[in-house]
Amino acid sequence: MALRLNCDLGESFGSWTMGMDAAVMPYIDQANIACGFHASDPVVMRNTLQMAKQHNVTIGAHPAYQDLVGFGRRSMNCSFDEIVALMHYQIAAMDGMAATAGLKLEYVKPHGALYNDMMAKPDVRNAILVAMSEYHRPLTLMLQATPDYNEHKAEADRLGLSLWFEAFADRCYDDDGKLLARSKEGAVHNKEKMLAQVKQLCDEGTITTVGGNTLSLQVDTLCVHGDNEAGVLAIQDIRELIGG
Amino acid sequence: MALRLNCDLGESFGSWTMGMDAAVMPYIDQANIACGFHASDPVVMRNTLQMAKQHNVTIGAHPAYQDLVGFGRRSMNCSFDEIVALMHYQIAAMDGMAATAGLKLEYVKPHGALYNDMMAKPDVRNAILVAMSEYHRPLTLMLQATPDYNEHKAEADRLGLSLWFEAFADRCYDDDGKLLARSKEGAVHNKEKMLAQVKQLCDEGTITTVGGNTLSLQVDTLCVHGDNEAGVLAIQDIRELIGG
Amino acid sequence: MALRLNCDLGESFGSWTMGMDAAVMPYIDQANIACGFHASDPVVMRNTLQMAKQHNVTIGAHPAYQDLVGFGRRSMNCSFDEIVALMHYQIAAMDGMAATAGLKLEYVKPHGALYNDMMAKPDVRNAILVAMSEYHRPLTLMLQATPDYNEHKAEADRLGLSLWFEAFADRCYDDDGKLLARSKEGAVHNKEKMLAQVKQLCDEGTITTVGGNTLSLQVDTLCVHGDNEAGVLAIQDIRELIGG
Amino acid sequence: MALRLNCDLGESFGSWTMGMDAAVMPYIDQANIACGFHASDPVVMRNTLQMAKQHNVTIGAHPAYQDLVGFGRRSMNCSFDEIVALMHYQIAAMDGMAATAGLKLEYVKPHGALYNDMMAKPDVRNAILVAMSEYHRPLTLMLQATPDYNEHKAEADRLGLSLWFEAFADRCYDDDGKLLARSKEGAVHNKEKMLAQVKQLCDEGTITTVGGNTLSLQVDTLCVHGDNEAGVLAIQDIRELIGG
Repeated sequence: MALRLNCDLGESFGSWTMGMDAAVMPYIDQANIACGFHASDPVVMRNTLQMAKQHNVTIGAHPAYQDLVGFGRRSMNCSFDEIVALMHYQIAAMDGMAATAGLKLEYVKPHGALYNDMMAKPDVRNAILVAMSEYHRPLTLMLQATPDYNEHKAEADRLGLSLWFEAFADRCYDDDGKLLARSKEGAVHNKEKMLAQVKQLCDEGTITTVGGNTLSLQVDTLCVHGDNEAGVLAIQDIRELIGG
Repeated sequence: MALRLNCDLGESFGSWTMGMDAAVMPYIDQANIACGFHASDPVVMRNTLQMAKQHNVTIGAHPAYQDLVGFGRRSMNCSFDEIVALMHYQIAAMDGMAATAGLKLEYVKPHGALYNDMMAKPDVRNAILVAMSEYHRPLTLMLQATPDYNEHKAEADRLGLSLWFEAFADRCYDDDGKLLARSKEGAVHNKEKMLAQVKQLCDEGTITTVGGNTLSLQVDTLCVHGDNEAGVLAIQDIRELIGG
Repeated sequence: MALRLNCDLGESFGSWTMGMDAAVMPYIDQANIACGFHASDPVVMRNTLQMAKQHNVTIGAHPAYQDLVGFGRRSMNCSFDEIVALMHYQIAAMDGMAATAGLKLEYVKPHGALYNDMMAKPDVRNAILVAMSEYHRPLTLMLQATPDYNEHKAEADRLGLSLWFEAFADRCYDDDGKLLARSKEGAVHNKEKMLAQVKQLCDEGTITTVGGNTLSLQVDTLCVHGDNEAGVLAIQDIRELIGG
Repeated sequence: MALRLNCDLGESFGSWTMGMDAAVMPYIDQANIACGFHASDPVVMRNTLQMAKQHNVTIGAHPAYQDLVGFGRRSMNCSFDEIVALMHYQIAAMDGMAATAGLKLEYVKPHGALYNDMMAKPDVRNAILVAMSEYHRPLTLMLQATPDYNEHKAEADRLGLSLWFEAFADRCYDDDGKLLARSKEGAVHNKEKMLAQVKQLCDEGTITTVGGNTLSLQVDTLCVHGDNEAGVLAIQDIRELIGG
């Protein structure tokens, strides 16, 4: 299967606009749409779903910790029950609104701190997997492609869940297959390196780490960013490179 | 069809408890469950749905204006688009969480100021009816039984919607078939008058107004209150009277 | 006293930016700063106060109904006690944060729907005036200059409150001295007419209404808008015209 | 100085009631009043301040992480700037509303997870201390009495801040002078042990730990709980024991 491009979208809120959604939609395959807990509101969700429909973009729910002012970027010490319930609420809201727009919700990608906690904390990941498996119909969970691929695959298999693994086009990986911290030099690739990383992923299924090692990564989709003009241009370049 | 009993439930929020849900559930037929905009949160919704399931209570969404601190009781000047979207979001969240609990959402009853505006303002009622008809599967709208029954029925018919009409067991009606304002003497019946009003509704399909007139009311369901012990006792008395 | 220029500022929220505050601050006299109920958050308030300090701009609190997603633009049916309390909370938060920044809060201008309700509904205006008079130190209330000037002045005098009256530079007035509704043709002046209206206000203390009448307006300050580039350019033109 | 009694109060929110404030006020010296981020709203704050005034209770602000649904009990990964700003906002709101009620805010006690993080994480404690020292007038910070007393005192002295140390009447301490986790047996004292612990603190300035060791604790005030009847009765017993 060809690499897909996924992008966080629908992150405006009330009178505040964020992201260049209209410019991005024509170039992506999968829209991770905010569900109202870190961004968005019912009117924004409705409009974003209409826009996705026009461009035949696959729809994903993008649930988050309940933290509007922090944009869901601050880790919160939630209980198992709280995580399961906030996942269900946000997924269900998006699911029904997508159906109302004539679309079918296909997958779920946690946002921000909830995503980071899913990758770093087994308890949070377990709560997310359980929430997905309890939901009344099957949806695919999108998470980060790492060397722990097999372990994550096994965790999902035990619950009968399917996964999509994503890589980051513009981020340098450390020798452990994790993203190099943004505070480190070289953490974010320039355009040339970004395109080289994408090409290598497509052709060989590997990335070159900061230390020069070659690392295999099982990748279904690339995360791209549409919140500024440089990001939109990068998306267009990547789309041209990978086709589709 | 026998009269049903409906009650607002699931109105706790976070660490704050409201309502005697466990005491009420065994005696009612229809639970109007808060969706997070005037009360409730994902954990409370999940627990309320479980409790409804144990007692085979029919599930309704109870959407509201987004006003937690005001408990959805303050009219807000929302646009048509805002009302449609807030209805879809809350209905969808409840719909998917109900399905996840193994239940089927059957109906929608707007809450508080949104309910009052639906009855008093044609623009708001129209937005609510359109929201219901656009939703991806049919749900019944619950609204107040009034002498405008035929007009409301016609509005719903044009959009292919079904309606359930409710009356209030413990409230005195004025001669126009509206609820006597709570500030007026005799606005809330004592137990004896309440049971007489219910009996008359069941037997004859009429109520006696404050002025002594007899008024026909098409009624499918009675609204009862479970937020205090007197309310719970009244529910038990009404249940005994109407059977079922 | 020369005409002042006042502008709504500090209306970003969390990760969402709104307004060109840095471009506007050098040209205005009075900053109406959001207090967290319709826009802003503690970090934004802190940063906005610092910016105001650098430019020696007079500080006003800009309290609103509690409606982030609606940006305080939707009228809410609040009680007298609710309005008094929400005024006190927001004014106090701004007052103490201004003092912490080494500034002195001077005045209060209600925002959006609360401002419109203050001008249109005597009950709301009374609640606002009482809130101001109960506050523990004197602050000036900013409201719209209308032909009801004397009545509003008398209401304030009875409570020992001082008022500042504002006019709108770019809005056409109807023959009753109210703003022509935005839906009407000619409601918003082009640059030439805006500057002519400002000049006439400065020189003669009058405006010319949509019907060609000359209307006296007691005006202390002009409301200008800094949420887009055209607005910022207009502010610079007005500043050049009125001096200071 | 005699031991004071402090209690969290004013934790109702909108239509939801919490705590037996009216029953507690006559027996305590210091009211830690919620500021709207984990509980309370402007109307509740106003009413709570009036009640405190009637009973001559000293007023403290009880700021928290912004997490209503979690009641401020979930640790959030806030930045230094965010903590300073949320402290200033909440303290200022309470300060001005207290002054408006004719009271003087005397101290600040962080709530829930913010309190726990203050005790456990030097970065959070530093942000809180800086926020207090930057505030435009001196207020006392209330924190937990522990064997780190001297270190905490030195941190405060460097910023010119005064501190009040509190102990818990009904909680068992471990041998390190920390509260025994609630999950451990014997974590919460029965009435007899609670009164013995209070008496020992008053007479000798020590507590007996779970392991039977005697530990010196510098204590200015005892934290008591008024959210249920048992708590209120305990407060009355402690008041009788310590006098005042």
